Amino acid sequence: MKASQFFISTLKEAPADAEVVSHKLMTRAGLIKKLGAGIYNYMPMGLRVIRKVEAIVREEMNRAGAVEVTMPVVQPAELWQETGRFEKMGPELLRIQDRHARDFVIQPTSEEVVTDIARQELRSYKQLPKNLYQIQTKFRDERRPRFGLMRGREFIMKDAYSFDRDPAAAQVSYQVMAQAYRRIFDRFGLTYRAVAADSGAIGGDLSEEFQVIAATGEDAIVYCPQSDYAANMEKAEALAPTGPRPAPSAVMAKTPTPGKATCEDVAQLLGVPLQTTVKSLVLATDETNEAGEIVRSQVWLLLLRGDHDMNEIKVAKVPGLDQGFRFATVGEIEEHFGCKPGYLGPIGLKKPLKIVADREVAVMADWICGANEVDFHTTGVNWGRDLPEPDAVADLRNVVAGDRSPDGKGELAIERGIEVGHVFYLGTKYSKAMNATFLGEDGKPAFFEMGCYGIGVTRLPAAAIEQNHDERGIIWPDAIAPFTVVVCPIGMDRSDEVKAAAEKLHDDLAALGVDVILDDRGERPGAMFADWELIGVPHRVVISDRGLKEGQLEYQHRRDTAATKVGAADILAHLRGRLGL
Amino acid sequence: MKASQFFISTLKEAPADAEVVSHKLMTRAGLIKKLGAGIYNYMPMGLRVIRKVEAIVREEMNRAGAVEVTMPVVQPAELWQETGRFEKMGPELLRIQDRHARDFVIQPTSEEVVTDIARQELRSYKQLPKNLYQIQTKFRDERRPRFGLMRGREFIMKDAYSFDRDPAAAQVSYQVMAQAYRRIFDRFGLTYRAVAADSGAIGGDLSEEFQVIAATGEDAIVYCPQSDYAANMEKAEALAPTGPRPAPSAVMAKTPTPGKATCEDVAQLLGVPLQTTVKSLVLATDETNEAGEIVRSQVWLLLLRGDHDMNEIKVAKVPGLDQGFRFATVGEIEEHFGCKPGYLGPIGLKKPLKIVADREVAVMADWICGANEVDFHTTGVNWGRDLPEPDAVADLRNVVAGDRSPDGKGELAIERGIEVGHVFYLGTKYSKAMNATFLGEDGKPAFFEMGCYGIGVTRLPAAAIEQNHDERGIIWPDAIAPFTVVVCPIGMDRSDEVKAAAEKLHDDLAALGVDVILDDRGERPGAMFADWELIGVPHRVVISDRGLKEGQLEYQHRRDTAATKVGAADILAHLRGRLGL
Repeated sequence: MKASQFFISTLKEAPADAEVVSHKLMTRAGLIKKLGAGIYNYMPMGLRVIRKVEAIVREEMNRAGAVEVTMPVVQPAELWQETGRFEKMGPELLRIQDRHARDFVIQPTSEEVVTDIARQELRSYKQLPKNLYQIQTKFRDERRPRFGLMRGREFIMKDAYSFDRDPAAAQVSYQVMAQAYRRIFDRFGLTYRAVAADSGAIGGDLSEEFQVIAATGEDAIVYCPQSDYAANMEKAEALAPTGPRPAPSAVMAKTPTPGKATCEDVAQLLGVPLQTTVKSLVLATDETNEAGEIVRSQVWLLLLRGDHDMNEIKVAKVPGLDQGFRFATVGEIEEHFGCKPGYLGPIGLKKPLKIVADREVAVMADWICGANEVDFHTTGVNWGRDLPEPDAVADLRNVVAGDRSPDGKGELAIERGIEVGHVFYLGTKYSKAMNATFLGEDGKPAFFEMGCYGIGVTRLPAAAIEQNHDERGIIWPDAIAPFTVVVCPIGMDRSDEVKAAAEKLHDDLAALGVDVILDDRGERPGAMFADWELIGVPHRVVISDRGLKEGQLEYQHRRDTAATKVGAADILAHLRGRLGL
Repeated sequence: MKASQFFISTLKEAPADAEVVSHKLMTRAGLIKKLGAGIYNYMPMGLRVIRKVEAIVREEMNRAGAVEVTMPVVQPAELWQETGRFEKMGPELLRIQDRHARDFVIQPTSEEVVTDIARQELRSYKQLPKNLYQIQTKFRDERRPRFGLMRGREFIMKDAYSFDRDPAAAQVSYQVMAQAYRRIFDRFGLTYRAVAADSGAIGGDLSEEFQVIAATGEDAIVYCPQSDYAANMEKAEALAPTGPRPAPSAVMAKTPTPGKATCEDVAQLLGVPLQTTVKSLVLATDETNEAGEIVRSQVWLLLLRGDHDMNEIKVAKVPGLDQGFRFATVGEIEEHFGCKPGYLGPIGLKKPLKIVADREVAVMADWICGANEVDFHTTGVNWGRDLPEPDAVADLRNVVAGDRSPDGKGELAIERGIEVGHVFYLGTKYSKAMNATFLGEDGKPAFFEMGCYGIGVTRLPAAAIEQNHDERGIIWPDAIAPFTVVVCPIGMDRSDEVKAAAEKLHDDLAALGVDVILDDRGERPGAMFADWELIGVPHRVVISDRGLKEGQLEYQHRRDTAATKVGAADILAHLRGRLGL
């Protein structure tokens, strides 16, 4: 490819609305062009990256035995009404009416349509297992689209759906996909982690996220450097402390803490470690009648150590809280504690409630909590002596670095990642809702056991950039670079030798199947180099008159700080070595 | 590929709503699956065909110097308001509101967005010419979607847009595309014609349709078997007759024709050729004031020979009718003719009007027309003698087979086709509407000269089937077949020899890069052959125990009436010959 025949459009300045580096660099390098909020043109340079991502995904999905289909972007509402998602999904689901005022949606995902295909096409257990996938345009009407392709509204996703005869077979299909995803992410050339994720109500451990590691990532990833344990923050278990609860050593006392409503402030005021404080979180659950009216509410007090954060996913698994909960109202809090939030604690309650202690809190002694009186805390509190044992003890908190790894093999560390893939065991959630059955070996109809598997095709380049960039621009891994090699001739218009050498190298590389671009635009060297460093092409060869006179060209990898001189006769061999050809 | 790992789903019966053979066969062969009116899942077998079409289109577009982009499916209404199409386009344009009640459309085509890209990105004549294309999902909310992928609502189109500095350069870009289209359609392996089409108000001859020839085609194609003239019916010119008008030989007479209101009936009643009759078509044009109110109307009488059909596109080019016309109301007709429709003619008018004669009518003598009295016609009518010469003479009619070719090289013939491609010179229609300019060589801003170029990617397989099928099913050309070769082993489960031979042939072909499928489903031979004949794979090899004992396999092309025996050792060479490898 010659640059003059391509479409190169770089910008000095990033757009004002670009908050993250990938959005800035993708716009500046001319990979994408904003059309509306969260809606982007994929420009020629960016589309090349997307197509490479698609090709790798397609190849590995096919290799894993999945079969490609394409389901429509515009889908009739009827199927979405069968599962209830037409009503239940929020405004992210873009709803349309056609000229006959019939309801449609723009697909944000395709469980309904693929399940409809399966219930018509897969009639016998003999046709199973089957995995159907598509690489297709999706739309989610995000309330606040931002970060470029990281959280766009229109995007491309690879979504796959497996259909199996029973849970055991579904687990095999799930593992096949989990392995295929490892191959896919290995091929992208990015640093990533496959982390265990919460599988919600379905249970089991069949949910993994594929996270591209980046300091700017939205998700906290928990892993154990001494083992292969990895999970997302929602999922990572905080083990119960190993030792027994120490015996009480302090006397319980009401202590003035004027204006200090947070654990941090109290610890600082009293000169004690934050780890000796306990925070009170007040939740409520509602019991409703058939008409949906609330007939009774129950207030809950959750106790966490002052330096710990509540994990909502874990709280939602506590028996009694697992049907939904909410934060208590100020009215409910005052009714039970006789005090406003900020100085709450489990001692001296006005009205009984259920107390759930985090595993860590359950083994604390001599702790500090609110005194249920403004500007006062209670110190030296001890379970059993000063208040009864909690109604329940559970893992309520996010893990922190240094916690013991759940596999017992070391200590947890935390880093940040960007979720670009997810494999998930669905069970019979959709097949039951849509009455999708096949005839089993016993001659009886059975519901499909399903799994779903996504990769954010247009998000992946953004994640790759968050991980691989410097102050000059993007640094692509070879596998998904828009071009693998750029040939930069200096003074091509003045020197026939430079022109001939540049064109020969271009043609030789192209003949080897290398994605090469020859910059024949006639830009000055500085501007030319800046463009390609911004765009992030990994391998660059500079050809100049002076170099040629010495029989040399200059090779530089995008990560190198300086160029290497390579004999003109050796350049092809040098590049083959670099490219692994 | 092994059939057991693929997704094969054939049906004995076509769906009730399938009216055309391609819709029936695509559904029966499991290429597509209806999801809603005009909305289809592209099933694995069909998607393979679509992907091959896309690959050929992409390769030739790239070769022609076009650059691929992707423009969003969901597009903000603002750009569509700039050109007025948001309001002007009918309900085929699917309009949506997002969660913030902002207007969007689902793209039926992308002139607005691509022009928006150009006006931002192409700032200088030095960046021109540029041709941007996409292969992207489109939606047109057809009032009556039907014929499967032939007239669907959601479909895939390749749309390209060229940008040039002046009309001469735009013509070059147009010709580059017209040539690329010929290469593309040649590669598809279909019989097609590139026909001149009407280019509307822009003028010039820069509009061609690419029509796949099929007896079931919607469009009439006009061509000259003795030359390379070809045009669509709208465009094909009917030349003026060569000879002079004969002298009058009959006396004009009012003749009773009770109940005979059509030329056919009159000719039959009077025992004269239909070619001696003239039909009267009454149109009207309206003059409006600035408020859009009609201030004056003009009635027009168009005269065509009884056996000829009016061509609205041609009529719309007659001076005076070229700003829009309508059919006259019954009131207007009675006011001018003193008679109701069916017996109208140009003689004895109550009120003057403008008469336009078709070229053929202008040289007729002794003709027959309505007498402006119910149940009467006038015979022996002659220009000059019985009525003044017409106000204008023009080509108003569709050509018919046997007309002289406009290039003077023979007689016209007519066949039917399916439009699958269109190249079109747009001029500055969109660039002016959107104020899209670049800086010219003279330092002044100039509007882009544009062209647009479409290929119906999902329509093409349907057209291919309309052209290539028999009572057993589809017959694909090699280039776009879902699989090129099918290997059908008989009794693979009973014979290790058959299994080994089938797998070896499959592997050998796959190693050659041939798209081969091995039918390992264990179907009985009859059902297996019927499936592949329905699906239309062009090359079939049957491997049986009996054949292997004789050292032979059976080869059959989908168009062959019987199989050919080929030595087991020669099969690969035989197939290479057949496939041109």
